[in-house]
Amino acid sequence: MAFGQLPSVVACGGGHGLYATLSALRRITDRLSAVVTVADDGGSSGRLRKELNCLPPGDLRMALAALCGDDHSGRTWADVLQSRFGGDGPLAGHAIGNLLIAGLWEKLEDPVHALDMVGELLGARGRVLPMSSAPLEIIADVIGHDQSYPDEITELRGQAAVARTTSDVQAVRLEPQDPPAHPEAIAAVEDADYVVLGPGSWFTSVIPHLLVPELAQALLRTKAKRILALNLRPADETSGYTPSQHIELLAEHAPQLRLDYVLADPSFANDDPHLEAYSASLGAQLWIADVAVRDGSPRHDPLRLASIFAEIMGL
Amino acid sequence: MAFGQLPSVVACGGGHGLYATLSALRRITDRLSAVVTVADDGGSSGRLRKELNCLPPGDLRMALAALCGDDHSGRTWADVLQSRFGGDGPLAGHAIGNLLIAGLWEKLEDPVHALDMVGELLGARGRVLPMSSAPLEIIADVIGHDQSYPDEITELRGQAAVARTTSDVQAVRLEPQDPPAHPEAIAAVEDADYVVLGPGSWFTSVIPHLLVPELAQALLRTKAKRILALNLRPADETSGYTPSQHIELLAEHAPQLRLDYVLADPSFANDDPHLEAYSASLGAQLWIADVAVRDGSPRHDPLRLASIFAEIMGL
Repeated sequence: MAFGQLPSVVACGGGHGLYATLSALRRITDRLSAVVTVADDGGSSGRLRKELNCLPPGDLRMALAALCGDDHSGRTWADVLQSRFGGDGPLAGHAIGNLLIAGLWEKLEDPVHALDMVGELLGARGRVLPMSSAPLEIIADVIGHDQSYPDEITELRGQAAVARTTSDVQAVRLEPQDPPAHPEAIAAVEDADYVVLGPGSWFTSVIPHLLVPELAQALLRTKAKRILALNLRPADETSGYTPSQHIELLAEHAPQLRLDYVLADPSFANDDPHLEAYSASLGAQLWIADVAVRDGSPRHDPLRLASIFAEIMGL
Repeated sequence: MAFGQLPSVVACGGGHGLYATLSALRRITDRLSAVVTVADDGGSSGRLRKELNCLPPGDLRMALAALCGDDHSGRTWADVLQSRFGGDGPLAGHAIGNLLIAGLWEKLEDPVHALDMVGELLGARGRVLPMSSAPLEIIADVIGHDQSYPDEITELRGQAAVARTTSDVQAVRLEPQDPPAHPEAIAAVEDADYVVLGPGSWFTSVIPHLLVPELAQALLRTKAKRILALNLRPADETSGYTPSQHIELLAEHAPQLRLDYVLADPSFANDDPHLEAYSASLGAQLWIADVAVRDGSPRHDPLRLASIFAEIMGL
């Protein structure tokens, strides 16, 4: 990182977790890229994917909104793109930004070109890149999903179903198994000073990046420091898992992965006596810091998170 | 008009006719407003109007595209907003710009705020205003539409039906009968140096402005010079009508209207010995000039039209 330059940071994830990370990171650097899951098959994204055979735009839209500039025009556009049509007609439930992104994709060859155009509209501080050029399906091995065979592993297909399950998820994989990574995502990871994984739904937003082979290789190969940001509490799909077990799940899906920092909020970390050892087993230093909002809801506070990232990055 | 200032021009119309006028006028002034019909009930606009109870966005979108800047970003956005979803799903046929405008309207109180935002996105040279704040219905008195009573006047409802009819349209009216004009449209007409009416589908894009009482009053009251641009040939709804009869129809719907200039292409005007007298009867000087594209198709050439407007305006 050249003298006087802000660090180049890549945030990997999807959904609300990535929204939180980006809302924090955009406050400390403008050399920022989000590498976003493209496996959603529920809601507005699922309908668009099915109708137009496009990438699911929802997580990409939300990441763009998180990077939105603080000026009036940027905020207004972000509000509009995030909002959804009401009523019960054919458009009901579609996020306006999803329709705009999907519409741009119908006209433009490279999905990133469309995302850059929406980013410009928002005055986005950073870029949003899909982790793959192809829409993906998440498939989970789950115990207890089929109530006739409560001890057997059954297959649960689709991100929406996996994210909602309260059964015991063992592992996830992608279909197609060897999806093409987007070259811009690879380049961003390779050029980064820091890569942030998580927080987010563990099986559907955090682990999938490690299952796209070219992207996983770039994440292993990059000279960037790797920061794992743990959740404030487990989502449905990892309910009952301890912080250590979250790290273990990550390692099971990417055995060669090394980390530099594990960032955890005391509310989740303090009951786990193994967390420091588990972090160290992947090479990581454990940082415990208050990063939640003060009202007790399980949401990251963007400015607290920003302050910890800045501390880790020596800014 | 202050020394050194370009003229303030308002173009009234809708559809392809207005697109042509705006494509011309944006080349000679940046003090430009389009006042656009909001009665469309067909296609993408009709579906959105029905689903969301909003103004029909299509004519407004097309006017915005016509005003789009000549830079790469503006042109790309205009192409995207004009393009339509394909396939046969719930989005098929919707213009992307229609969805964006309708989406903005769901969030923003004033429809003009949304149009200004899209205009900014396009780098638009001028503003686009709806002629009314309320969606309107066009109702036509038509002879020969009901084949059982070929000589009787029957009522034909809806812009799409009226624009397509090859029966003999006698008159049109709006429902509601006294719709609210948009205040910005009134202000633009009052402040204009020139107002351009036409070209366009006579009953569905040109005459409706004269049927919104407050707007009609502003068009009568304004000190602006009034230019009527005739079509290159009659559309379906006025098939068989001569240029003079087009002027007569206008006068029948707005008896007090006076004009300063009638602009006509020789291809349509030269067979009509009464055109000069009819123009004079409304106070207008007749300008006959080549304004069509050279390939013989009935489309105005934007640069030829711009050159004639500039000549009329003494630029």
